[in-house]
Amino acid sequence: MAAAVAWEAGKPLSMEEVEVAPPQAMEVRVKILYTALCHTDVYFWEAKGQTPVFPRILGHEAGGIVESVGEGVTELVPGDHVLPVFTGECKECAHCMSEESNLCDLLRINVDRGVMIGDGQSRFTIDGKPIFHFVGTSTFSEYTVIHVGCLAKIDPEAPLDKVCLLSCGISTGLGATLNVAKPKKGMTVAIFGLGAVGLAAMEGARMSGGSRIIGVDLNPAKHEQAKKFGCTDFVNPKDHTKPVQEVIVEMTDGGVDRAVECTGNADAMISAFECVHDGWGVAVLVGVAHKEAVFKTHPMNFLNERTLRGTFFGNYKPRTDLPGVVDMYMRKELELDKFITHSVPFSQINTAFDLMLKGEGLRCVIRMDE
Amino acid sequence: MAAAVAWEAGKPLSMEEVEVAPPQAMEVRVKILYTALCHTDVYFWEAKGQTPVFPRILGHEAGGIVESVGEGVTELVPGDHVLPVFTGECKECAHCMSEESNLCDLLRINVDRGVMIGDGQSRFTIDGKPIFHFVGTSTFSEYTVIHVGCLAKIDPEAPLDKVCLLSCGISTGLGATLNVAKPKKGMTVAIFGLGAVGLAAMEGARMSGGSRIIGVDLNPAKHEQAKKFGCTDFVNPKDHTKPVQEVIVEMTDGGVDRAVECTGNADAMISAFECVHDGWGVAVLVGVAHKEAVFKTHPMNFLNERTLRGTFFGNYKPRTDLPGVVDMYMRKELELDKFITHSVPFSQINTAFDLMLKGEGLRCVIRMDE
Repeated sequence: MAAAVAWEAGKPLSMEEVEVAPPQAMEVRVKILYTALCHTDVYFWEAKGQTPVFPRILGHEAGGIVESVGEGVTELVPGDHVLPVFTGECKECAHCMSEESNLCDLLRINVDRGVMIGDGQSRFTIDGKPIFHFVGTSTFSEYTVIHVGCLAKIDPEAPLDKVCLLSCGISTGLGATLNVAKPKKGMTVAIFGLGAVGLAAMEGARMSGGSRIIGVDLNPAKHEQAKKFGCTDFVNPKDHTKPVQEVIVEMTDGGVDRAVECTGNADAMISAFECVHDGWGVAVLVGVAHKEAVFKTHPMNFLNERTLRGTFFGNYKPRTDLPGVVDMYMRKELELDKFITHSVPFSQINTAFDLMLKGEGLRCVIRMDE
Repeated sequence: MAAAVAWEAGKPLSMEEVEVAPPQAMEVRVKILYTALCHTDVYFWEAKGQTPVFPRILGHEAGGIVESVGEGVTELVPGDHVLPVFTGECKECAHCMSEESNLCDLLRINVDRGVMIGDGQSRFTIDGKPIFHFVGTSTFSEYTVIHVGCLAKIDPEAPLDKVCLLSCGISTGLGATLNVAKPKKGMTVAIFGLGAVGLAAMEGARMSGGSRIIGVDLNPAKHEQAKKFGCTDFVNPKDHTKPVQEVIVEMTDGGVDRAVECTGNADAMISAFECVHDGWGVAVLVGVAHKEAVFKTHPMNFLNERTLRGTFFGNYKPRTDLPGVVDMYMRKELELDKFITHSVPFSQINTAFDLMLKGEGLRCVIRMDE
């Protein structure tokens, strides 16, 4: 089967014939139909400051169809439509049993593990030599093997070339707003960082009926695009001498009701927190910070009844909740098509990398059957 | 009328004959029956690093009976039993209209204002010379004048010598747990700082059915007393070489479900936040920090789905919610008597100051009619 292999950090992916072993216990072999490229793929492909895990098949934002199932898999059968997810849901650990958490103890994201969790082996080989997996999904391959706990079974009527986006970034941003910030109708919402995740958070604010949706980004070109996602006001921190939180507090007579931070920059996190209204403001952190980053603020900002929460994958439990997100799209409450700015056949996957490195577009969907 | 006047910072209060003017528009003159001493009184009596406001009648934790009402007061009539509150509820501003906030725009605590909000005058005089008010309550006086928005009308059957404690510290701690941390039955809860406010937060954990209630204090003598409030484990940070948050995380297999910080020390705030479990942990800040204090943590502690919130007066709206807290006491769900460790007649009010300065006991109730 064809797969795009990353042989080493930062080098173009190479199309290879890869053998994909049958699924073992609690595993599923999936035929990938569409996969998109997410910043996280690029981040681990560049592998800067990381323990390199190569050769590796990247890819984690995708949609496909179950080809075969391993022993013990009862929830899925061949033909089921599924979204692979980089983090799982075992349904048995303390986190899965908690209504509030999706940080599954067993299947929580692990970026360093390049093998299956069951037997510590890879299912991919070229001439008998193993090729490593990536976050349990490795969707840059016509076929891949995934733990059953990392697959969400979805409505087979849903177009996989669109809903594949829900497998990572869009759900992350959307859930941050809908599940964690939870703006009520008519509230004001600020979104920091207008990449795909931030625009998905903004889409959540639009769906919630936000009265004023303030986009914050250092790139003025982001404003026009953001309008499609409900953006009513745009603030570029570079246009102001005072801290952006002060600008937003003045614009909104005391602060926004909700803020969602999608850049991963610690200063933006502080701004997002300090721009919410006292008494009821909630700020939500989505963007992943550097290891050395520090969040700091005066405690009085909390004591004046502000709340700060972080989220991972929009607090969605992959198997339990993603089918419902797909349904939101099917009911036309959630708009996905506007996130797809490019589409390429599998053979041109490196074009998708080029587009992301240039910062062009939001999502490039890769068509595996071409 | 007799009042205990603080003529200057740090000097014993002096019993004086004070004239208490009739209530003006939206004001109520209250006969105080019982008042307790709270750290905040001592803090503003010592007036270190503050703009001194003297001579002043301190006192804000109290219970009394309406003597007369000013123009426009329709909710209270002479004879009503009331708790004065240092922060108010106008019922008209954005905060009062919000379900989530009690930070009333009009009547929010103001520690520097020594006069009535209506006309900027004091209602207390000695030989025609004004004596300043304190946080709108000034309960160290047989009679005092209070804005109607700072008075909670309560069940006249409730014993004022007990429920007077609900006018400040006990509600602050209790509400931090019940209204903000909101532990579910069976959860683990850590309380940082076991003074009256911390023990009230602990009482909230006990009432919520906390399975394990961990008290944290630098003073080992606090352990025995805390047992009456449901304390199952006691941790003294001085007994450990590693940070107390690590000790608690180890004790609880990953962290407590809820933590409430009642010291005001920034390091304790950080510990309280970092000791809650990932996925669902909630930490609540109650203690007021120094002006220069900084809360800091690694953003990943948030991103792993922890929540940090601050609260003021336990998020209780004084007029709307305090009557219900009194009712909790009347139904014997909330235990108050154990907070009262001392009681003195009004003439010995300075003894109450001595006890607090020595750190002895929790609350000293002052009987105004003796």
